[in-house]
Amino acid sequence: MKVNLQWQENCFAATGEGGASIRLGAGNDNLPTPMETLLMAVGGCSGIDVVSTLAKMRQPLTSLAIAISGRRREEHPRYFETILLTYRIRGDVEESKARRAIELSLEKYCSVSNALKPQARITYQLELLPGA
Amino acid sequence: MKVNLQWQENCFAATGEGGASIRLGAGNDNLPTPMETLLMAVGGCSGIDVVSTLAKMRQPLTSLAIAISGRRREEHPRYFETILLTYRIRGDVEESKARRAIELSLEKYCSVSNALKPQARITYQLELLPGA
Repeated sequence: MKVNLQWQENCFAATGEGGASIRLGAGNDNLPTPMETLLMAVGGCSGIDVVSTLAKMRQPLTSLAIAISGRRREEHPRYFETILLTYRIRGDVEESKARRAIELSLEKYCSVSNALKPQARITYQLELLPGA
Repeated sequence: MKVNLQWQENCFAATGEGGASIRLGAGNDNLPTPMETLLMAVGGCSGIDVVSTLAKMRQPLTSLAIAISGRRREEHPRYFETILLTYRIRGDVEESKARRAIELSLEKYCSVSNALKPQARITYQLELLPGA
């Protein structure tokens, strides 16, 4: 897997293998910073697992939003010490199955969160809302 | 630090604190996947360090491109085992100072690469091209 970045005065344009670019900022504009982008990768990775696992479990999902917050170390390098994912799932989904899908992701399948685990304590909350 | 993701049929829209959104794909479109986004975060984080350190060293940078490649584990969770960053720096920059800036980033300041280090062996290459 390979990506390319090009510095553009005050931000990076980053391109993946599919060709689409995203821009990463240095904190002086409204673009996501690299550390915010890392949290987005955690949420995207786990979210894709949850959507896929709930589909396999035949649990109809109406919508899924994930809020991810992280607390960084005070000292350099300032990586995340704790990460909290809040999954807000709407749909006619059983709570036990939603929890099972989330835990399978965080414990086994999500490559991004498991890459961070030795340094970060990762926890989650579930908000399950009725469907439609 | 907090980010929000919203599932949109086949991708996530992710929003950081500055308000700008990026889209993360699930591998079935041209959008960056979460694992590609993770590599972008590594490159952006280190690249911002390098730009800033070279400026403090009064080393005039004309352009900076970074290619980041990663090899994933075969088993779940499939996080990166090795990551190689290739920094292509153009400008009237001394090689020793460029290497010092890169190594300070990877060893001390870059929060994203240092978050991944317990699992991933991270190495770099430098391509230094004459300025302008």
